Amino acid sequence: MFDSGVGGLTVARAFMDQVPGFDVVYLGDTAHTPYGTKSPGTVTRYALEGIRFLLSRGAAMVIIACNTAAGVALDTLSAHFQLPILDGIGPAADHAVKATRNGRIGVIGTRTAVDSGVYEKRILAARPDIRVYTRSCPLLVPLVEEGWLKKPETRMIVKDYLRPLKVRRVDTLIMGCTHYPLLADIIQVKIGRRVVLVDPAAALAEHAGAFLDRNPTLAASLPKNGRLQVCVTDRTDRLQATAAAILRRKVDLTVVQL
Amino acid sequence: MFDSGVGGLTVARAFMDQVPGFDVVYLGDTAHTPYGTKSPGTVTRYALEGIRFLLSRGAAMVIIACNTAAGVALDTLSAHFQLPILDGIGPAADHAVKATRNGRIGVIGTRTAVDSGVYEKRILAARPDIRVYTRSCPLLVPLVEEGWLKKPETRMIVKDYLRPLKVRRVDTLIMGCTHYPLLADIIQVKIGRRVVLVDPAAALAEHAGAFLDRNPTLAASLPKNGRLQVCVTDRTDRLQATAAAILRRKVDLTVVQL
Repeated sequence: MFDSGVGGLTVARAFMDQVPGFDVVYLGDTAHTPYGTKSPGTVTRYALEGIRFLLSRGAAMVIIACNTAAGVALDTLSAHFQLPILDGIGPAADHAVKATRNGRIGVIGTRTAVDSGVYEKRILAARPDIRVYTRSCPLLVPLVEEGWLKKPETRMIVKDYLRPLKVRRVDTLIMGCTHYPLLADIIQVKIGRRVVLVDPAAALAEHAGAFLDRNPTLAASLPKNGRLQVCVTDRTDRLQATAAAILRRKVDLTVVQL
Repeated sequence: MFDSGVGGLTVARAFMDQVPGFDVVYLGDTAHTPYGTKSPGTVTRYALEGIRFLLSRGAAMVIIACNTAAGVALDTLSAHFQLPILDGIGPAADHAVKATRNGRIGVIGTRTAVDSGVYEKRILAARPDIRVYTRSCPLLVPLVEEGWLKKPETRMIVKDYLRPLKVRRVDTLIMGCTHYPLLADIIQVKIGRRVVLVDPAAALAEHAGAFLDRNPTLAASLPKNGRLQVCVTDRTDRLQATAAAILRRKVDLTVVQL
């Protein structure tokens, strides 16, 4: 599993809950984080290095937890590597297409992910009549990383960001960044109680489970000791605390150089 | 001149205003930005690479605009390279020591810079009787980079951060990060009208001018066409806009790989 930081551990948790048993090597590229403000070229370069590392650790399948990396680098990565690479954008788009009743879907994400236009592309490929409204929310990742989950400032900022999507009367909202589900309560209040929130982490975990079901030979070949190893390219006390909060248990971050 | 991003262009502007004529090669390490949330070891590694690049471009003197890099890496850098390396921490500390009347100095900065304890160390070395109160303000850099300079949310967050320093009745406040002077108006209101704000960019530019005065042989050997070349390790439209806003003119960012 590859992510730009430790936020993608939400995906690791969902995957290990839904598809128990498989060993997971997680790489959080915390020396280069955040990806959401960097250029597609640079993000692609980092993702290539990250997946090379996972291959060197014996990965036979890669899950990209980071939607920014998936949004800008997936084509390059798929062309570059032979192994299956799964991401949350398609599954979240499919989920949203199924959920919407009025044909108006909102997407929030990092600037780089939103600018890539990848969500619109996937949604419109499935249902060209749907209207997609996107909004980049660059301050939400720092707010979550500061642990400001309940502060009035956070509520105001979320409200600011969601206003244009609310005006467009979206009835389904994709929370297109691993950090956003931690703000789901506030997002739900500000976008409206009846709006369906789509969490790509859950959609991706489900998608990965289905993929393994469809590929029993691959699934049978994978080690199944239920182990999670969390590697990072930079380690601080705060990252350690965030990782433990997401996994709801103590966790040792192993520092690796790419 | 070395910085973690384009925020240090405030230092470049101050330097070129106060000490006109010298050619400046500026490197903003935007592929790895921000430094303020990363570990001292990783920041030191990035700073070593950055200064190696500046040497390869013929630099004969280096100004470190980034207080996080200066705070954690200066000793390593000075041991590693022969050329003079100047930073803003000493000059800002000296300025604050001169300015305080009640012996209570506040310092705001990134988490890594504040945790390094470098401001306290420099202030207490000059005047052991002074009380230093520090506060890390991790959300201010993202807020400035989003251009949220006048928003009510920004005012609330600044007030939150400054409250403990205000309670301690500091009469002098070091804005220990290149981005903070862009919030100087709000900071002044929230910390109190009578508190002296110290801008390390200005202190550093003055210090560099004085250093060149004291080293006329070095100063005479430097090219003086008044040119500024701005190199970055990653380029986006937003960085281009921020750089232009700080320099108050159009600027081409040259992408380089370290």
